Amino acid sequence: MTYCVGMVLDKGLVLMSDTRTNSGVDNISVFRKMFHWNVPGERMIAVMTAGNLATTQAVVSQLEERTKQPDERETTLLNGQTMFNVVTEIGRLLRKTIEEAQKSNGDRGKGRFTASIIVAGQIKGMEPRLFMIYPEGNFIEASWDTPFFQIGETKYGRPIIIRGYDRDMSFEDATKLLMVSFDSTLKANLSVGLPLDLLIIEKDKFEPHHEHRVTHDDPYFDAISSGWGAALRNAFHSLPDYSFKTK
Amino acid sequence: MTYCVGMVLDKGLVLMSDTRTNSGVDNISVFRKMFHWNVPGERMIAVMTAGNLATTQAVVSQLEERTKQPDERETTLLNGQTMFNVVTEIGRLLRKTIEEAQKSNGDRGKGRFTASIIVAGQIKGMEPRLFMIYPEGNFIEASWDTPFFQIGETKYGRPIIIRGYDRDMSFEDATKLLMVSFDSTLKANLSVGLPLDLLIIEKDKFEPHHEHRVTHDDPYFDAISSGWGAALRNAFHSLPDYSFKTK
Repeated sequence: MTYCVGMVLDKGLVLMSDTRTNSGVDNISVFRKMFHWNVPGERMIAVMTAGNLATTQAVVSQLEERTKQPDERETTLLNGQTMFNVVTEIGRLLRKTIEEAQKSNGDRGKGRFTASIIVAGQIKGMEPRLFMIYPEGNFIEASWDTPFFQIGETKYGRPIIIRGYDRDMSFEDATKLLMVSFDSTLKANLSVGLPLDLLIIEKDKFEPHHEHRVTHDDPYFDAISSGWGAALRNAFHSLPDYSFKTK
Repeated sequence: MTYCVGMVLDKGLVLMSDTRTNSGVDNISVFRKMFHWNVPGERMIAVMTAGNLATTQAVVSQLEERTKQPDERETTLLNGQTMFNVVTEIGRLLRKTIEEAQKSNGDRGKGRFTASIIVAGQIKGMEPRLFMIYPEGNFIEASWDTPFFQIGETKYGRPIIIRGYDRDMSFEDATKLLMVSFDSTLKANLSVGLPLDLLIIEKDKFEPHHEHRVTHDDPYFDAISSGWGAALRNAFHSLPDYSFKTK
């Protein structure tokens, strides 16, 4: 499995992903699931992937190749006119990659090789935008009502994001919130694992504002992980006590 | 879906279940998923069910009927010698009920009509015990290492239980913990819904120590639900802030 979260803030976009891939619990590996490309002063685009690793690597490799060897007939990450164009093209690539793998595997391929992708980015003159692409290649965009997307093992870490998210929070607070959400997920599910990748895209900057890989010995993540247990217990004890008598 | 949790404490057993059943999001109903039987001074047994409603109702009805009209050849809830006997029998009933429904539906029945059951109880002279029965009819028992079971929509509410559970906590604190866990789940997933049923089985008491139905206007649940948001935000802000500079 996988866990990736993308968030829209007033100040820009914040992304975090884990790096664990597994095929059964006895075959786990570390693979990067977050990738980004930018043209300084003009555009900054990032993707995070969940699902079949061969599929997501094929999609990312194709995006990478087109970017290096652009062809006039194709939309690449670096020449799409809008984020909508860019995401449409990534969705098309994703659907095509899944379909080909399914087709060449006949009956055994049914319902397999699927993947989802979060795309975040900004092109000059437009707002930062966040999208989630389904395995079918179609996609949805984050909005004021739903300002973050999760893919992969989303449930454990969702309640704290619902409770803690605020559109005008600082990048630092958003990072802290994501670390808590990932820590809750890591503690409950073996298929999500360290290291984590963090990427912050500041509005109108068109280059990574901050990038960080959270490894096993990261002192800040350690502090969050151990501190959150104590903070939760305090929060819990601050709530009114249940009384059998009044019922 | 459903959400049920059973916990073993030093002082006894605590159970909570929701009451929402759904077949699609446009067909939701309220059904009790928690049932109990007792012989004063001798035994107290409770079950909570998740899964196909026709299956779980059939199992509970059979348990109920046998209890009312015991037959010497059958183990009933009220004459099983040990909790192990009782749970084995419930498991056999569950497997048989699922198999019959699947068989009479041929190909369409494959993998359907499944359900899981949590059984909690105590028989005089023995310890309180907690079991989880799989659709296959086999089961596992809670232990010092894994002192609680969840069935249904388990993920959202799991991190707080992992963090907050303590074997020697009071019934009041355990109730508060479960309310927080259920509140997190209710906020994130439409398929789990109020009212909730709470049952507390005190060790060596052999009758319900406390029973309560948490409805939409329950003042304590309201206080937990609104207070937990604020308490979480405080907990969150009490953690050290992330700094871009030190990375």
